[in-house]
Amino acid sequence: MNKHAIAVIPGDGIGQEVVPEALKVLETAAQIHGGIAFEWTTFPWGCEYYLQHETMMPSDGIETLKSFEQIFLGAVGMPGLVPDHISLGGLLLKIRQELEQSINVRPAKLLCGMKSPLADPQSFDILVVRENSEGEYSDVGGRVHNGPDEMALQTSVFTRKACARVMEYALSVAQRRRRHVTSATKSNGLAHSMPFWDDVFRDVSQAYPDIQTTSMHIDALAALFVMKPHVLDVVVASNLFGDILSDIGGAIMGSIGIAPAANLNVERKYPSMFEPVHGSAPDIAGKGIANPIGQIWTAKMMLDFLGYEDIASVVLYGIEETLVENVKTADLGGSATMTEVTERVIAHMKAAAK
Amino acid sequence: MNKHAIAVIPGDGIGQEVVPEALKVLETAAQIHGGIAFEWTTFPWGCEYYLQHETMMPSDGIETLKSFEQIFLGAVGMPGLVPDHISLGGLLLKIRQELEQSINVRPAKLLCGMKSPLADPQSFDILVVRENSEGEYSDVGGRVHNGPDEMALQTSVFTRKACARVMEYALSVAQRRRRHVTSATKSNGLAHSMPFWDDVFRDVSQAYPDIQTTSMHIDALAALFVMKPHVLDVVVASNLFGDILSDIGGAIMGSIGIAPAANLNVERKYPSMFEPVHGSAPDIAGKGIANPIGQIWTAKMMLDFLGYEDIASVVLYGIEETLVENVKTADLGGSATMTEVTERVIAHMKAAAK
Ligand SMILES: CC(C)[C@H](C(=O)O)[C@@H](O)C(=O)O
Ligand SMILES: CC(C)[C@H](C(=O)O)[C@@H](O)C(=O)O
Repeated sequence: MNKHAIAVIPGDGIGQEVVPEALKVLETAAQIHGGIAFEWTTFPWGCEYYLQHETMMPSDGIETLKSFEQIFLGAVGMPGLVPDHISLGGLLLKIRQELEQSINVRPAKLLCGMKSPLADPQSFDILVVRENSEGEYSDVGGRVHNGPDEMALQTSVFTRKACARVMEYALSVAQRRRRHVTSATKSNGLAHSMPFWDDVFRDVSQAYPDIQTTSMHIDALAALFVMKPHVLDVVVASNLFGDILSDIGGAIMGSIGIAPAANLNVERKYPSMFEPVHGSAPDIAGKGIANPIGQIWTAKMMLDFLGYEDIASVVLYGIEETLVENVKTADLGGSATMTEVTERVIAHMKAAAK
Repeated sequence: MNKHAIAVIPGDGIGQEVVPEALKVLETAAQIHGGIAFEWTTFPWGCEYYLQHETMMPSDGIETLKSFEQIFLGAVGMPGLVPDHISLGGLLLKIRQELEQSINVRPAKLLCGMKSPLADPQSFDILVVRENSEGEYSDVGGRVHNGPDEMALQTSVFTRKACARVMEYALSVAQRRRRHVTSATKSNGLAHSMPFWDDVFRDVSQAYPDIQTTSMHIDALAALFVMKPHVLDVVVASNLFGDILSDIGGAIMGSIGIAPAANLNVERKYPSMFEPVHGSAPDIAGKGIANPIGQIWTAKMMLDFLGYEDIASVVLYGIEETLVENVKTADLGGSATMTEVTERVIAHMKAAAK
């Protein structure tokens, strides 16, 4: 029996509802597999916690998380009540940073049973691999002057170490996929950061002669996600470019509400964090109608990272069968409740395991 | 008779073919209008010029251009033969910069007769208004260290003056449209530049109480272009964000090959420059099969800027009627030649004028 100690942070809004659903799916996966035992420890951190304690998590929160193997997060945010920079900076971005989760991975895959907003999508299956620790998000900058002369500077920092790390990850993932990596650049507009990014990509690729590589400007690449997503396999991108591309990826999949994400510490020195792309959706929270698929697909990504790729694919099978039989929540145009969706996913997983 | 002295730079590849087509359309527009006289002066600048003279344009090129009212550009670039940074930096970006064309405007409008890659697009009509002089494209940055410690820095510069200018333009254009401006931000990731951008937007908007304003993060906004483009009217964005959004705009219109652009000096101190979004497409150049619609739509934008909005709309009518009757070049799935398309546009314009 392989034991896995997982820190669970349901967070705010629908996060508190969909996380327990995904845990049911993970328990089912463990049961089917036979050799996995999960140990869940739930932390009530987030905006509610903040309203009571004036901090999103206790001061030893990061230390506490370090003792777990992985982190399973729901959603964080109470727009209007807690300013974004607190809810993000005090939890999500803090964990990403302090636990050195320097790679963010988001699939954009057209699932069976999903309706893409694209007219005639050939089936596509893209993996957006995003640098998650520096680049455009580097907290370097400030303002000078007041009044009409005021200006703001923001500096992107790109290190060879971080660029190479995310590119190596992308290239090695591509070896188990369709062996093609597209690097997002903008060397014709950002004349310092992006030519550097391109140089590192060229250098790193040399060690992967079996992988076909392409560099594309972010503007053209964003358009390609809409025009011909099926030609893409793995896409490697800087922090900002990856953020934008993975949201377009969510859109062409038919809904950002089903998209999963992983923040990886690939060195496995600290826990990685798995979180759906969607937010806390306070407007529909507590009604039992939230779509659990984003969180369940996120659970699938955690299984992959734990090394259980077979059972992970059973979870994805369960999701797709449920979508195909049109058991969907309202956001996908259906009338099923959250629990009904989860139950069908679990039923399909069990049926597949027989 | 209003005389307009226009500098014409056909540039490279298909630019040399489609520019004369668009000039025919402009002459037709002038004829129909009755009170316009164009004076064309053509400059052979571009990559061919570079291969002969080792410069994209003569050293007094910018001074020469200043004596014209507007600039009408085809396309520039000879990938493989002339490095990007020379063809762009020596002509396109140089003109934008030195003639202070600080605002870039690109429509994303679903034309009658175009097939969008979106499954069920309600008709949409977006205007992307982009800051064109600073921001992420500021040429500030460099590298430090060698080997594994190498890093690159790139600094975005945002001034209140330039931000306010593009926002004022966007807000005032919206007054003649559907009175809605969406500002592209990313204040939750870029903690210095984008909160500043948001502050300026809030300040500037105050003078436009008749305009509804929204701020949206670039990732969600890019997804919205795919999910619900019809909810957008004017979009105001920084240099990089505007670049990305306008390419997604081109994609949802069905082809970047038909998209037009204007680089405006709104103070009218120097000429503005009108150029299609597409490139020089050397692979199909010289065959008479290039799509002239991007260049013709660009001509329409020049007419608008010269104050001839009525006759400009006749040009757009001519384009749409031609698309509707399915006279299209190969890139749009048709079999018409470039000249056939232009002839139909002109015929429809003349018919409308009767
Ligand atoms: C060629 C490149 C520098 C340019 C830009 O990004 O401005 C192009 O993409 C455009 O949008 O006109
Ligand atoms: C909330 C925000 C800072 C975040 C990001 O851009 O990283 C989000 O958009 C995401 O992609 O997880």
